[in-house]
Amino acid sequence: MFSFTLSLDPRGRTPMYDQLYAAIAEAIRDGALRHGEKLPSKRALCAQLGVSRATVETAYELLLAEGYVESRPRSGYYAAEYQGQGTAPAGVLGLTSTFVPERKESAEAALLSTSAVDVSLFPYASWAKLYKEVVYNSPELLQRGEPQGEPALRAALERLLGEYRGVSCAPEQVVVGSGMETLMDQLVTLFGPEAVYAMEDPGYPAMERKLLARGRALRYLPMDGSGMDAEALERSGATVAYLTPSHQFPLGITMPASRRSQLLRWAVGGERWIIEDDYDSEFRYGGRPISSMQGMDRHGRVIYTGTFSRSLAPAIRLAYMVLPAALLPRWQALYGRQQPTVSRYEQTVMARFLAEGCYGRYLRRVGKRYADRRAALLAALETIPDLRVSGADGGIHFLVTLPRHSEAELLRRAAAAGLPLRGLSEFCRVTTPPPSTLILGYGGLPTERVSEVAARLKAAWDSEASH
Amino acid sequence: MFSFTLSLDPRGRTPMYDQLYAAIAEAIRDGALRHGEKLPSKRALCAQLGVSRATVETAYELLLAEGYVESRPRSGYYAAEYQGQGTAPAGVLGLTSTFVPERKESAEAALLSTSAVDVSLFPYASWAKLYKEVVYNSPELLQRGEPQGEPALRAALERLLGEYRGVSCAPEQVVVGSGMETLMDQLVTLFGPEAVYAMEDPGYPAMERKLLARGRALRYLPMDGSGMDAEALERSGATVAYLTPSHQFPLGITMPASRRSQLLRWAVGGERWIIEDDYDSEFRYGGRPISSMQGMDRHGRVIYTGTFSRSLAPAIRLAYMVLPAALLPRWQALYGRQQPTVSRYEQTVMARFLAEGCYGRYLRRVGKRYADRRAALLAALETIPDLRVSGADGGIHFLVTLPRHSEAELLRRAAAAGLPLRGLSEFCRVTTPPPSTLILGYGGLPTERVSEVAARLKAAWDSEASH
Repeated sequence: MFSFTLSLDPRGRTPMYDQLYAAIAEAIRDGALRHGEKLPSKRALCAQLGVSRATVETAYELLLAEGYVESRPRSGYYAAEYQGQGTAPAGVLGLTSTFVPERKESAEAALLSTSAVDVSLFPYASWAKLYKEVVYNSPELLQRGEPQGEPALRAALERLLGEYRGVSCAPEQVVVGSGMETLMDQLVTLFGPEAVYAMEDPGYPAMERKLLARGRALRYLPMDGSGMDAEALERSGATVAYLTPSHQFPLGITMPASRRSQLLRWAVGGERWIIEDDYDSEFRYGGRPISSMQGMDRHGRVIYTGTFSRSLAPAIRLAYMVLPAALLPRWQALYGRQQPTVSRYEQTVMARFLAEGCYGRYLRRVGKRYADRRAALLAALETIPDLRVSGADGGIHFLVTLPRHSEAELLRRAAAAGLPLRGLSEFCRVTTPPPSTLILGYGGLPTERVSEVAARLKAAWDSEASH
Repeated sequence: MFSFTLSLDPRGRTPMYDQLYAAIAEAIRDGALRHGEKLPSKRALCAQLGVSRATVETAYELLLAEGYVESRPRSGYYAAEYQGQGTAPAGVLGLTSTFVPERKESAEAALLSTSAVDVSLFPYASWAKLYKEVVYNSPELLQRGEPQGEPALRAALERLLGEYRGVSCAPEQVVVGSGMETLMDQLVTLFGPEAVYAMEDPGYPAMERKLLARGRALRYLPMDGSGMDAEALERSGATVAYLTPSHQFPLGITMPASRRSQLLRWAVGGERWIIEDDYDSEFRYGGRPISSMQGMDRHGRVIYTGTFSRSLAPAIRLAYMVLPAALLPRWQALYGRQQPTVSRYEQTVMARFLAEGCYGRYLRRVGKRYADRRAALLAALETIPDLRVSGADGGIHFLVTLPRHSEAELLRRAAAAGLPLRGLSEFCRVTTPPPSTLILGYGGLPTERVSEVAARLKAAWDSEASH
């Protein structure tokens, strides 16, 4: 029935629909299933493979959503034209699922990923010890907790953010949530369906996906060397600006104080708000450290947000935001009667982890490690002639520009050398991307592999022959 | 300036705006501030009390939202007419915040609360031991996890739900989230803004609040002795029915199989879905145990949901849902690239807690305790002449009806005896509430206090004198 062999493993860890999806997708990528070739009917495939109809339906829906197959009314499913170079075709606005490829990302492929972080210094012993103490000594934590989060954690966050980021707030303005996405969802609900969002372009795709999924209006605003343009923002009609001023994602720009002031003035000019996503401000290597926009805000228009997922470990589902006093009643009306989205145990462990200085010590150690790694990587990349680095003052990623090849060619050669990277154009919606520019993350790059990885990139990009 | 004394404690644990709100609300309830009396201007109050403008603004917004004060344009704030009997005035459709009074609910007031659960049997030792083992032995858990939840946990849930609730699914249909509210938010997003929700009336206010907050259309459908009326549902134009068939909240009805079939047929008749909230099905005392609607569903129209917050402890932020295969691609498109909302550590602890039989043993112990307590409470209430009990076959609450007084009088007398209760009318939107009916929860009622509490209720309701 198929022109290739399907082999599924009902006892495998991967769900059957997923195996079926992956097998057909691969066949289309490989050319084993050619453009226009008809796929078996769902019923026939169920019978042939001995799987449930739901399995086949889910696999086909995924293939359809990702553009691998086309559906023709009253006829069936056909292999779509496939023009990829080993990557899945992009879904509409990046909204459709690519969870399958992502889940299978190998450690090798994560070497230069922007989302990887170094967890080898994670303080297992203190964390486990604190957790045990908390469970044994705090039976009251089993009962309902405060919707905004444990008072002890909010007080510790208020001190931490005041000290490290110049955030000025009271603990009662702090809200704890199970990751940035949870807090973003709350903000999107809080601002209501009429809000119009301004996004940095290029910008952070997770926030874009969230807004599109919730059906919100958004405006992509171009960036200059200082960040989002305040006049363009004024003209855009946006009511909420989502900004990453500390280390713009993906450009790595640190927004200067003058631009921050301009954007704050925009917010004061109406019922307007700024979401300041301070996602990786814990790591800073050069330039003047600039404290948060929230700390400059005298009119209560900035919602400050941050997370422990990048500074500690992706699996720590604990993020926080600081709400202006004027938004508190609205938040409380929406969420003030539901339980916090983070376990009170883990909240209390984190509160003690902060209050007892464990986090400060940990940040110094891991910050030192990232600084060493960044210095080594920058030094190694200097051996590549004409290569320009930007956005390297903070965080755990920067940009490289190498004018000798196109972005696509740079990506192709890096991938062929086993070092998949991401190009800047992938993050641009209305802006023409700067040519030949890639994003390098080093959170997942072991320091001992820096020189080898840099040498592989150099070799891949050096050779003149174009394939 | 005020006709009563305001005393705030800047060093207290309660935020200043909250203290201010509470003091003014109390003054209005007590009559110290009379209807029509003007409140000081915000500016004057800041100066008088030496607090920030934000503090005063937040306090006034809360008072306004809860109906304690009225705002007159270009004039100021005035005390509203207060008709309460010791309780806060109900906000519009229950949406406005009452977090402040709830937070201060005393242990005594929680004795008969429907949301309290008995945590005295919580297995601290196994939980802490498992957590420690997981942290020390699973460094890989610090990295990004599967968006739907840990495979081990989903497999354990599939087995648990199959065994206890007759749920028929594959682990890849299971989604884990940080509490029911998180999963409800996901479902509301997944079904989109055009969905029309059918709610049981009387029904579960948290779901109603969620839908109203998200601006969704909802229809309140009356209940008969078997649950939601299928014909009324058909006529309502709803596309999603939210049901609590195992132990309806608040009526306590166990929906018979025939009604379940009717409602399932409704769902098959179009692009329609049933959310089955199986929130306290772990506890069952009489009548035939009926397995889940999901288990009866042959067409994949039921989303099954459940939580550990009621069976284990409110602070355990771990709930789960089983999605029909047809909804999985939609869920994955929306959430398949974001991290799960529950820490991988706590997910893994729960997976082992289930797989190693700890949960089954725990459920038997706590189920036995609830059964004893329920029997004792029912026996003690039998001494109250004319009192009728209903909805007591499962869960940890039931209804009592006592025709000799009105609902308001029953509530007033119970509250005067230090036993605040909730009346059924509070949960009715379009339905005329059955007269003289109250809800008694016993999750928070220590067994040794059952006879004393029942005696206090009897005494309160016995006396003829009406106050």
